[in-house]
Parts: sequence; C-alpha cells; structure tokens
Amino acid sequence: MDKTQDSKSRSIRGIVPENHPRRESILVRERLVEAMEREVVVPQGLIAQGRGECFDYLIGEKTRDFAERALEVAAVLLIEAKNPVISVNGNMAALVPREIVELADAIPAKIEVNLFYRDEIREKAIEKVLREAGAREVLGVGEDASETIPELFSQRRRVSKRGILSADVVLLGLEDGDRTEALVKMGKKVIAIDLNPLSRTSLTASVTIVDNVIRAIPALREKVLKMKSLSREEREKLLKGYNNRDVLRGAMKFMSERLAQLSLDL
Amino acid sequence: MDKTQDSKSRSIRGIVPENHPRRESILVRERLVEAMEREVVVPQGLIAQGRGECFDYLIGEKTRDFAERALEVAAVLLIEAKNPVISVNGNMAALVPREIVELADAIPAKIEVNLFYRDEIREKAIEKVLREAGAREVLGVGEDASETIPELFSQRRRVSKRGILSADVVLLGLEDGDRTEALVKMGKKVIAIDLNPLSRTSLTASVTIVDNVIRAIPALREKVLKMKSLSREEREKLLKGYNNRDVLRGAMKFMSERLAQLSLDL
Repeated sequence: MDKTQDSKSRSIRGIVPENHPRRESILVRERLVEAMEREVVVPQGLIAQGRGECFDYLIGEKTRDFAERALEVAAVLLIEAKNPVISVNGNMAALVPREIVELADAIPAKIEVNLFYRDEIREKAIEKVLREAGAREVLGVGEDASETIPELFSQRRRVSKRGILSADVVLLGLEDGDRTEALVKMGKKVIAIDLNPLSRTSLTASVTIVDNVIRAIPALREKVLKMKSLSREEREKLLKGYNNRDVLRGAMKFMSERLAQLSLDL
Repeated sequence: MDKTQDSKSRSIRGIVPENHPRRESILVRERLVEAMEREVVVPQGLIAQGRGECFDYLIGEKTRDFAERALEVAAVLLIEAKNPVISVNGNMAALVPREIVELADAIPAKIEVNLFYRDEIREKAIEKVLREAGAREVLGVGEDASETIPELFSQRRRVSKRGILSADVVLLGLEDGDRTEALVKMGKKVIAIDLNPLSRTSLTASVTIVDNVIRAIPALREKVLKMKSLSREEREKLLKGYNNRDVLRGAMKFMSERLAQLSLDL
C-alpha cells in the first residue's frame, strides 16, 4: 500500500457537533490522534486512553474523595522529597504538557521523559512539546538516559542519573505495571495516576490517584500549594493516616455502586 | 518531521514474555496496531478497543448468561430474516475476519463494509481482508455504497442498495450510537455486539450482545446452527420472552457485583 497515505489526518475535530453528548471526550481523543501523527503518542497509547475512558465513565468523570485523599498525601510526599521527579510519557505530554510544567514549578520537581517505545525521534518530539509548554530542563532524552534500572523487557529501563535513578519520589501517569514494581523495589516512593484501581500499577504504587490525568495534574498542583502552608506535624499526620489499599477499595466500591445505580435507572 | 518514520512498526509481538499475565490481551492489541499499519483500522478504533478491554475485564473475559440469552434471540432473528446483513468495520475485520465469513455462510447473510472514516483505500483494504478470509461477496465498497440513510455527520450514511438499505435485520459490532439509532428508526431489527451495556448503541439496539466480538461471533454461529433445528413455535417463544433492558440490567449488575467482590478480595 502507498505509504504516503499513512500520514493522512483522520481528525474529526472540525465536524463534531456542538451538542454531541460525548463532545468533550471525543475532542480529547482527537488530541491524542493528532499527537500520534506528530510521533508523540504511539498506537498502544490510544488503546490505553480507551481503557481509561471506560473507568473514568464509571467514576462519573469527576475527582472523587478517594482521589482527593491520595492527592493530599501525594502532595506532601512531593514537597518533602529530596529529589522528586515527574516521569512523562507520550500520552501525558499530549494531554497535559502545560499542567505538568506548572506542577513541576510548584513543587519544585524535575521532569523526565520515560517511554516504553523509546526512540530518539519520539524522545525529541516529547521534549519539544514540554519545552513549548515552558519546561526549562527535560531529562531522559538521548545520552542523558544512560543509566538503567532492572526490568523485564522494555526500554523503560533507561533513565537519567540526575533524574529517576537518584529520585526518592517519582510521579507516574498512565504507566505499565512492570515499571512501577521495579521502581518500588528500588526503594522509591511511587505516586501513580491511574484510572484503573485494579491495575498492577495501582496495586503496587505507594500512592494511587484514581483519576483522569487531565483533572489530577492541576488538582495535584493545587494540593501542593495548600500543603506547603501546613506544619510538618500536620503533614506527618496525613501520611500516617493513609492506606493505599483503602483508597483502591473505595474507588472500586464507588464504581460498583454507580453501576448498580445505573442499572436501576435503566 | 520525517514522514518516512510514520510507517515504522511499533509491534512488540515478538518480545512479550510467554508468562506475561496479560499476554493474550496484549497480542490482540498488537493485531489491531498491525491492522492500523495496513490501513484496516483507524486510530479511533484503537481507543474503542481500549474501552472494550475495560468492560471485558469487568465481565471476567467470558461469555456470561446475559450474553447467551441475547445470542439465542439474535440467532433466531438472523435465521428468520428476509435479508440479513452483517455490517463490518475495521476493528471487526482485523479481529475476526474468518469468523465473520463462517457466520455469514451459516445464516446465510450478506457482508457489507460500513465505516465511520470511509475512504476507498480503507474500504478496499477491508474488502481484501474479508476476501482472503473466504468471503465471496463484499458489499458497500466503492460505487456499491451509493445509497444513503438519514444520519448526523459521518460517512456511515453510505450503504449498499442490496445490503443495509434493504435489510430487515442488521448485525453490528463496535458501533457508534448515531448509526444504531438511524437504523432502528428505519424500522430494522438491529443486533449489536457491544461490551459497554451503557452505550447508546446498547440502549438503542433491538438485541444487545454484551460480549467481546472475538468470543461472540463464533458463539453466534453455534447458536445459528442450534436454532435451525428448533421448531417455529420454539423460536417464537424465545423471541416473545426476550427483553433487551433486562439483559442490559443483568450485564450491569454482573459488573457491579464483580467489582464489589474484587474490592473485598483486595
């Protein structure tokens, strides 16, 4: 088949009616499809987006109290970390580039590109997106990703010496389970943003924010600013009272009850 | 950016470990990514696959009793139809081409290509997949899709005169809600295969099979063979006792209870 056809845009951004019941959701999808055409997102990232959409639908597309609790503790961990790093993949760069930079500035934290499907074209495309969104430094691109973490089979193992390798707290969004496990085994605190409370990432992370990155990243910045005004004792109390399994159970229970309610309304 | 990079394969088929907990699911994803590289599947089809994966997970990746009930009634409708048509899109062609042809032969029914993102390259790529899988006739390609059905904004409106336009029963998989509504308004019986019991397609269809097309299409063929041996009275009884809302409620209740159970097991 003629390969020149591959680059043809399939975007329907311009033709989604203003009154379409799923307009917002469709426009987010289109943002990812366009990002794939710019090499920022890979096809597998689109499938991951779809899985997320389903779980987001089940929580009613809102930041719920189980996410609020995780956001508060995540903010405390990030503020108190010696070397906090925000790990960015293609989907996050496509969906919330400016919000990532604003969060990194508020903490402050480093930003590192980390990809399952790593190649230099993608790394640089994502770096470009982040720099255009205001990032002054982007780790994990090219030679900077020269260190490795023990892992099963993906290019996720390649990390920056000043970034994820030496980080004590790592914030991940939309991640694979193998990588989360590897980072936790290295003794790092891992904060995951994952809409699926049943994923290995969710079950393995130190703190799991069951929410859409589109809402969670700006909400996390708000919590960081708020937690900065708390005393060390108040923060300590939040950390001590936190149980990630309870949060995941809360998310699953919420989804279960919502489905039961929707079935009654049918 | 250098467009020659766009056609580079991102397949990880060769490197997924045999013991990976989600190996089957990952290989199905890879089949779709490869189909996108051949123009059969569009990026939005990958997002739809991801949504399906999530709901499939919630039903435990098995054909449940609510799907069995819908499959039986769907088989009766297809056997008794004057002009039954199986409407095929990119994802279905990528996932179950041979199974679609075998189902069409068993009924017998016509096969028609119908695409949201229609262009001649895709139509022909899908026709090729179906012909290689054994289809002798594929409607809805090129000039054959010359008729239109009233619809909102997509190329879905274009149909074949001998196929969907004059069909009394249409089988759809992985469909958009607008189209399902349009076909029902035209007085057709619509059988939908949709893992999301809350979608507009599921709510609008005459019969909704809440199951993965990978399991549902072969299962439907089995039911067709079985229902052929029933008397007209026995078939009539099945049709009379069927309530699609009950089936959808059953699917939602099942998902709800499974989530509640999983939260207890955590």
